[in-house]
Amino acid sequence: MLHYLTAGESHGACLTAIIEGLPAGIPIDQADINRHLARRQAGYGRGGRMKIENDKVIISAGIRGGYTLGSPITLSIMNKDWENWRHIMSSAPDAQIEDKKVTHPRPGHADLAGGIKYNQRDLRSILERSSARETAARVAVGAVCMQFLAAFDVFITSHVVQIGGIRIKNTISDIKEIAKLAEESPVRCVDNDATKKMMQQIDLAKKQGDSLGGVFEVRAGNIPIGLGSHVHWERKLDARLSYGLMSIQAIKGVEVGLGFECAERFGSRVHDEIYYDFDNQKFYHKTNHAGGIEGGMSNGEDIILRAVMKPIPTLLTPLDSVDINTKKTYPAAKERSDTCAVPAAAVVGEAVVAYELSCAMIDKFGGDSLSEMMRNYKNYLAQVEKY
Amino acid sequence: MLHYLTAGESHGACLTAIIEGLPAGIPIDQADINRHLARRQAGYGRGGRMKIENDKVIISAGIRGGYTLGSPITLSIMNKDWENWRHIMSSAPDAQIEDKKVTHPRPGHADLAGGIKYNQRDLRSILERSSARETAARVAVGAVCMQFLAAFDVFITSHVVQIGGIRIKNTISDIKEIAKLAEESPVRCVDNDATKKMMQQIDLAKKQGDSLGGVFEVRAGNIPIGLGSHVHWERKLDARLSYGLMSIQAIKGVEVGLGFECAERFGSRVHDEIYYDFDNQKFYHKTNHAGGIEGGMSNGEDIILRAVMKPIPTLLTPLDSVDINTKKTYPAAKERSDTCAVPAAAVVGEAVVAYELSCAMIDKFGGDSLSEMMRNYKNYLAQVEKY
Amino acid sequence: MLHYLTAGESHGACLTAIIEGLPAGIPIDQADINRHLARRQAGYGRGGRMKIENDKVIISAGIRGGYTLGSPITLSIMNKDWENWRHIMSSAPDAQIEDKKVTHPRPGHADLAGGIKYNQRDLRSILERSSARETAARVAVGAVCMQFLAAFDVFITSHVVQIGGIRIKNTISDIKEIAKLAEESPVRCVDNDATKKMMQQIDLAKKQGDSLGGVFEVRAGNIPIGLGSHVHWERKLDARLSYGLMSIQAIKGVEVGLGFECAERFGSRVHDEIYYDFDNQKFYHKTNHAGGIEGGMSNGEDIILRAVMKPIPTLLTPLDSVDINTKKTYPAAKERSDTCAVPAAAVVGEAVVAYELSCAMIDKFGGDSLSEMMRNYKNYLAQVEKY
Amino acid sequence: MLHYLTAGESHGACLTAIIEGLPAGIPIDQADINRHLARRQAGYGRGGRMKIENDKVIISAGIRGGYTLGSPITLSIMNKDWENWRHIMSSAPDAQIEDKKVTHPRPGHADLAGGIKYNQRDLRSILERSSARETAARVAVGAVCMQFLAAFDVFITSHVVQIGGIRIKNTISDIKEIAKLAEESPVRCVDNDATKKMMQQIDLAKKQGDSLGGVFEVRAGNIPIGLGSHVHWERKLDARLSYGLMSIQAIKGVEVGLGFECAERFGSRVHDEIYYDFDNQKFYHKTNHAGGIEGGMSNGEDIILRAVMKPIPTLLTPLDSVDINTKKTYPAAKERSDTCAVPAAAVVGEAVVAYELSCAMIDKFGGDSLSEMMRNYKNYLAQVEKY
Repeated sequence: MLHYLTAGESHGACLTAIIEGLPAGIPIDQADINRHLARRQAGYGRGGRMKIENDKVIISAGIRGGYTLGSPITLSIMNKDWENWRHIMSSAPDAQIEDKKVTHPRPGHADLAGGIKYNQRDLRSILERSSARETAARVAVGAVCMQFLAAFDVFITSHVVQIGGIRIKNTISDIKEIAKLAEESPVRCVDNDATKKMMQQIDLAKKQGDSLGGVFEVRAGNIPIGLGSHVHWERKLDARLSYGLMSIQAIKGVEVGLGFECAERFGSRVHDEIYYDFDNQKFYHKTNHAGGIEGGMSNGEDIILRAVMKPIPTLLTPLDSVDINTKKTYPAAKERSDTCAVPAAAVVGEAVVAYELSCAMIDKFGGDSLSEMMRNYKNYLAQVEKY
Repeated sequence: MLHYLTAGESHGACLTAIIEGLPAGIPIDQADINRHLARRQAGYGRGGRMKIENDKVIISAGIRGGYTLGSPITLSIMNKDWENWRHIMSSAPDAQIEDKKVTHPRPGHADLAGGIKYNQRDLRSILERSSARETAARVAVGAVCMQFLAAFDVFITSHVVQIGGIRIKNTISDIKEIAKLAEESPVRCVDNDATKKMMQQIDLAKKQGDSLGGVFEVRAGNIPIGLGSHVHWERKLDARLSYGLMSIQAIKGVEVGLGFECAERFGSRVHDEIYYDFDNQKFYHKTNHAGGIEGGMSNGEDIILRAVMKPIPTLLTPLDSVDINTKKTYPAAKERSDTCAVPAAAVVGEAVVAYELSCAMIDKFGGDSLSEMMRNYKNYLAQVEKY
Repeated sequence: MLHYLTAGESHGACLTAIIEGLPAGIPIDQADINRHLARRQAGYGRGGRMKIENDKVIISAGIRGGYTLGSPITLSIMNKDWENWRHIMSSAPDAQIEDKKVTHPRPGHADLAGGIKYNQRDLRSILERSSARETAARVAVGAVCMQFLAAFDVFITSHVVQIGGIRIKNTISDIKEIAKLAEESPVRCVDNDATKKMMQQIDLAKKQGDSLGGVFEVRAGNIPIGLGSHVHWERKLDARLSYGLMSIQAIKGVEVGLGFECAERFGSRVHDEIYYDFDNQKFYHKTNHAGGIEGGMSNGEDIILRAVMKPIPTLLTPLDSVDINTKKTYPAAKERSDTCAVPAAAVVGEAVVAYELSCAMIDKFGGDSLSEMMRNYKNYLAQVEKY
Repeated sequence: MLHYLTAGESHGACLTAIIEGLPAGIPIDQADINRHLARRQAGYGRGGRMKIENDKVIISAGIRGGYTLGSPITLSIMNKDWENWRHIMSSAPDAQIEDKKVTHPRPGHADLAGGIKYNQRDLRSILERSSARETAARVAVGAVCMQFLAAFDVFITSHVVQIGGIRIKNTISDIKEIAKLAEESPVRCVDNDATKKMMQQIDLAKKQGDSLGGVFEVRAGNIPIGLGSHVHWERKLDARLSYGLMSIQAIKGVEVGLGFECAERFGSRVHDEIYYDFDNQKFYHKTNHAGGIEGGMSNGEDIILRAVMKPIPTLLTPLDSVDINTKKTYPAAKERSDTCAVPAAAVVGEAVVAYELSCAMIDKFGGDSLSEMMRNYKNYLAQVEKY
């Protein structure tokens, strides 16, 4: 079993993640984790914070000489802004918590529900943790998982398919091509024309002091048949992936393959017919409406997931809120924020998917070293071929 | 912590569920569980199996004299069809497994991926468990959870908002009204006109030997503020609900509140402004675009979830498949099936939501007897009022 | 991951267990499960209930044609006594719960703490679940696990090393020999002389209306090196085994290998020196003071665990207690009971150990079918040989 | 649910723990955590490493202005020795792993089984994590838990009852008195005479290049009735505590209350009779043979647990081992080590018990802020009083 915890407040000293359950012997490239952290910070439409932070991972446990040990891995990311917030966010009793106190909860955020639940009257004590800054730790975890999956040639990427009213017209089905084109676009969009329009939309929103959400797609290729399971609801791969994606800050919907379009079509136009390729000794489908998952299991096709991100709730032209003490109507608190963070969310989406696929791989193939697991994996591929 | 397991094959002796972690002292009405089982079996567009089975729950542990004991609860539902399948599905070594053997995997089902994963050459050994018949056990579990939640006045219902291309036009926001109207419609649709058109679509699909999916909505009302949490991804209420809903057979997408429509709008038109009602001493929102969940927590508004069900994959005019032995192309296996099961899936959706909300309630309020938990709950409501 | 739930009250309709997570393709012999159930019911010193019940397992899910399907397995054991208790234990509101009501909690039982915790005024609602009858379900689960482990030649047995003041003098180290001799003794004791004295002690206790506890040992042989792990506390094999054993009703202590004797010796007389057998290409130890577990991992030697069972708390000459209503002192309630159940507890101990070892095997070797898992296992053995 | 992960190698940069699930509003005193870290480092018989390290906790998340936030807490302890080991233990590919390579596994350690399991040929990659240095992180976690429990007046302490052949004669039953006396003894022993003899034994062992184990007792007072549960094996408080204690490095046995002495006595001399104190409106027992736990639940008496620690396996006069490459017999590797660490293990035992009791408290009383939980707790105490 693989699991991880993250900790850290947005303006605290650092974010920390501990990952427990990866096999020994996985080559880990620290620079590649940093590359993913940078990808999360990029994207047209980001605000000032991204200029302050330049996230770099510190590895302090579980990796030695470039390889995992099988023991828990500690990843930390320092918050550069900490120096400015130390006196406010300090763990010590003398922290000046009255400074930067927040009493006007922001609509669309955890502020009010969190303040009530945890009985806090300074909403900063909520928003510091609910902040999407936490996703930096998840991207670091996901980057380690991606290096693990890369050993099995699993490839994960993402692209943005909608921002505001702008959707891409044509989709590309080649996953490496998607990755290449998305990386070149300031909004992770594979379509040049849509990229331009999305950027214009973001400019417009910014001018209006408003914000924009959108839809991103995560794809995972070279997935062996049979990750996840139909036998028990908690094992279903699509359910697990949905759990992970929906847990990302600001995500309000998730779909697999055709997703909501399934409701429009007759069954005969939804299901992917099965064929056999005698040359390569494998079953295949000509279509992939299922998004690579049938019966809660990977079916050998690319996994295709989409998630919708709501617009950033922190608006420069703030919405109505109330002061939690006086109960009078006030504009919501302003925290420094972005206009659109869908490209960043897509990168977080990749990380979450990498984690869930890693769980499913470990569950299926066992093994305590990468070499043992790889042997189990390859022998299973041979079994599949002979099926 | 609350958890449950279900077991049982579609044509096995029975379905069984064990629920562990409910407090003592919850009044349980067996007839009401049966009412939910009947609701799952109803709906325009169901096939022959529903006429054979008339599901009734048997309670054999955890409930005494009409009240839960705090100990694990066993719920069983006998399969009436078992007598016809006994010789095929028996656990004994002399089962005639060659009879009714399935070697043509059905597109859209677990058959092929499951057969390969579990190394089974009779796909019946997969499809018997992946079958949506398993959801009868989940509905029984959910019915118990609903009786638990009813003690806290939590109310859960569902309605169908789309079948095939037919969508309802106007939504109703009163949850009790939704429940009433949905229950009266053969397709659980609150809109008479849409009901009629949906039934026509189903008739059409049936005539064509085809099938239809759709979208259902689950709503939960009177939810206290602060279920779930923003502090750790696995605790987020929307993520948990999405995990549960996506684990239902044939579900390909889940959304909360505005869901995918969030991508269309500016932020100023998405987030629910916060106001204070001095008369009732409570915070409120004039809109509920968030679907009752912000920052991974319930915010006091109705929880609104939608899920899309793909069309039933078992078609009377079967899709192309291959024989797993000869690898030659054959039509997919036919199992007796429905044309449209979206209304039934909505009932399953309610059950899954009831379970997840029960988990969140137990997590927040603790307590080993309903009276203890109720006391904790009421004192929290008083705390919320004074916030 | 493997897990299971049990449900059922002592005089309820039946005990039920669901096991989730075993691979497909394990041959399951129902008669062998029944054999273990009978072993649990045997032993010198048992009371009347054992004559009423003659436990037989019913399998209603997860096994087909003699083999596991990979889907959850349902095991039920009917309570023959149910007919006499139906009106008292029924789940229906009309149960005559005033009949056989218990208000005098028995010292040494869950009665009082349970009554207070769950806010129950009829202690029957506690004792029916806390009863050691529940262990019948665990023995059934363990019997399935043992058949799974048997595929890997893992062999588990138990013997009684102490009852009352009587301890065996000489221990036998051959696990098969232990199994053979224990099975022949009415108290599962490998020493004829001690057997006789233990039976005399039991007779004496019975005559005095008293009861006796004792110590049993569980041994597991042919365990591959490396089950469990040192990397995280929850993965440690000895910790997991201790968790399981201590959860058995009436167990008050657990030890591994030398156990408490470790405190008496210098380190140089405790640790097992390491040697290499060039002929068989394996590391070995000449002693096994560690009881087969070092650093939270199996080290290839037999696993040796001991647990102490307190005397049955239900005495024919009852201890002082109080009436929970009047608070006046009364003799504790009498439920039909045994004089000594250590041999039965040993059988339950085997079951619990079988479950934990199965978890550890699945965790290490993965695989969804026995053939896949076996292949992974054998390749690992080859890896170990080459280490 | 409360859970935590630790990470860190013995000579790595630092140890880190993340604790997830504590309520908001717990006052946390960093100095008190450091006090417990110092207690773990103390005790007669410790070796050189303890002089190098002077453990201090760094809190970087989850606590603000002296109070918990409800969000995950990060605790780190830097390894002072890291500077000397950086080039060997670095996560970077250029680490000089050939330096300080270990190829002679130490009997009684994780070295050999771990090396085989994780397929590592430098046993340092195992022993760095299996080292008891990890318990510093657990003591930090436990210290936080103790501060949490202190709000409920729960008091936890430990004392050493045996080292080598020396056992204490008379036990003291007052928990505060035990704490006071233990703290004054260099070996945490409440008996002056035994303290002296234990120190002599340690001196003797040291002179012989040998090591000693022993038995410690952990006691927890002011525990409410009803923590843990009888309904499901995984919930049993004694089982959970045993899981935790047995997971401590070098622990080979655990007992509750009378423990193994239960096997010696008749039932009439084991079970604690129940009485009622009309003045204080509470049930009580005149004896506490059960060690405060009956039926898997706390019964209101002090919880009494004992654990046996085997002698430190790293001997100055090393035992036989083999080189894992040549397979020739060699003396085991020497790592700097202690002669006797039982007093330190007792402190770790307190920490583990504090964690498990915190889990059980949170499970029973729920609540997201200390004030909410406290209210639930006090109302439960009132309910107990009225029972």
